[in-house]
Amino acid sequence: MSDTHPAPRAAMLAIGDEILSGRTKDRNIGHLASVLTLAGIDLKEVRIVPDETPAIVEALNALRTTYDFVFTSGGIGPTHDDITADAIGAAFGLPVTVHRQANERLAASYRSRDLPYTEARQRMARTPEGASLIDNPISVAPGFRVENVFVMAGVPSIFAAMLDNVLPTLPSGPAIQSVAITCPLGEGDIGGPLGEIQKRHPGTAIGSYPKFDGQRYSTELVIRSRDPAAIEAARVEVEAMIATVSAATGAAKA
Amino acid sequence: MSDTHPAPRAAMLAIGDEILSGRTKDRNIGHLASVLTLAGIDLKEVRIVPDETPAIVEALNALRTTYDFVFTSGGIGPTHDDITADAIGAAFGLPVTVHRQANERLAASYRSRDLPYTEARQRMARTPEGASLIDNPISVAPGFRVENVFVMAGVPSIFAAMLDNVLPTLPSGPAIQSVAITCPLGEGDIGGPLGEIQKRHPGTAIGSYPKFDGQRYSTELVIRSRDPAAIEAARVEVEAMIATVSAATGAAKA
Repeated sequence: MSDTHPAPRAAMLAIGDEILSGRTKDRNIGHLASVLTLAGIDLKEVRIVPDETPAIVEALNALRTTYDFVFTSGGIGPTHDDITADAIGAAFGLPVTVHRQANERLAASYRSRDLPYTEARQRMARTPEGASLIDNPISVAPGFRVENVFVMAGVPSIFAAMLDNVLPTLPSGPAIQSVAITCPLGEGDIGGPLGEIQKRHPGTAIGSYPKFDGQRYSTELVIRSRDPAAIEAARVEVEAMIATVSAATGAAKA
Repeated sequence: MSDTHPAPRAAMLAIGDEILSGRTKDRNIGHLASVLTLAGIDLKEVRIVPDETPAIVEALNALRTTYDFVFTSGGIGPTHDDITADAIGAAFGLPVTVHRQANERLAASYRSRDLPYTEARQRMARTPEGASLIDNPISVAPGFRVENVFVMAGVPSIFAAMLDNVLPTLPSGPAIQSVAITCPLGEGDIGGPLGEIQKRHPGTAIGSYPKFDGQRYSTELVIRSRDPAAIEAARVEVEAMIATVSAATGAAKA
């Protein structure tokens, strides 16, 4: 990229045995990826780890020291396997205690619903000391932020709502723009010339996404850049290339 | 777990800018997770990295030296951004050359379809030296194995077909069995007693998966073990606990 403002770089840490066992299909990774791209933040790495403290601590410490921001999902509910708050505390070397404001919100919420504020539910008020809360407009129990780490729920609707609350607080990079070109040819036909076009347009990222309908390949080409003029220059060359290759291979297919 | 035969431990490395940008929603992680669980192999970690050689090399070397097996997806097509074979070679310190058998298969396939065997397509015959091939029954271009690393396609139907060819060659652990119990109560109601049950049944893994219908929570509880008797003993206690808590909270809800 030829930007003078480099985009912030982010990572995600998804926490949960249920994803690694296949019981739950993750839906948060794709959502975070799309939302960050629109916000001009580059998601550079994702890790999925089980509900095991050493695995969470090791992955979190690797990611938070490498990237500008880390977003976690999962493990902040009220059950015994919800160990994310304690693991985040361990990673930062911070004690995990009851967060007064979180505790008040949860107590008030259960009181208003005539439900007991059980010991299990009180677990959801615990954060590493000094954490700031991330509002949960859906089911009250908050996420929290410690330095550059945003700790959010695993339930997709709540993860998305928490993310909506977090994004406006981040310094985002210039948004990435993109143009998609549907190409009736397979990657094997266009791979060579497409690589040449990519080399001539280093200010863009040209992605090639094969589609396979069971019989033959086609390709969706996506040109991404923070510079619209760079996208347009590459687009003109890609479309000319598709026309040329189509004409050359047309005889064989006719 | 109380097994005398520990399950093999596996990791996955998904490679592709398109997943990290949100353009493509990954479908291979969930599939691999489900299939490995049924085969008695524990998936312990997943990483997603971009189409960048240093990122692939670093992640692969971390995973292949930690786990028994590593499964990769993506980046083995014919375009310039398909750099997985070269990155795997770099990680192992192996030269990447044309694999004779892969080359013959690809050449024959394109010849039979009256399509040119372009330079781009010939890229798909390259592997690190000494790799063994993984058959691709769908679109010919093979995956490959180097030591404990299985390199497979990113297109979900092809990833799954390659995995079907790989699994019978692996020494699998005893299959994990599981029982699911639908619980009408939320995690906040059952979290405390469920944690106690988990402590009394260390030979099982009791997972709690909240569901939220927009108004209230319910929970799916899953008891997993390689020992059916351990599952049954935990199941009896969980069902008794649900009945007890339901009776106690019934008055408040009625």
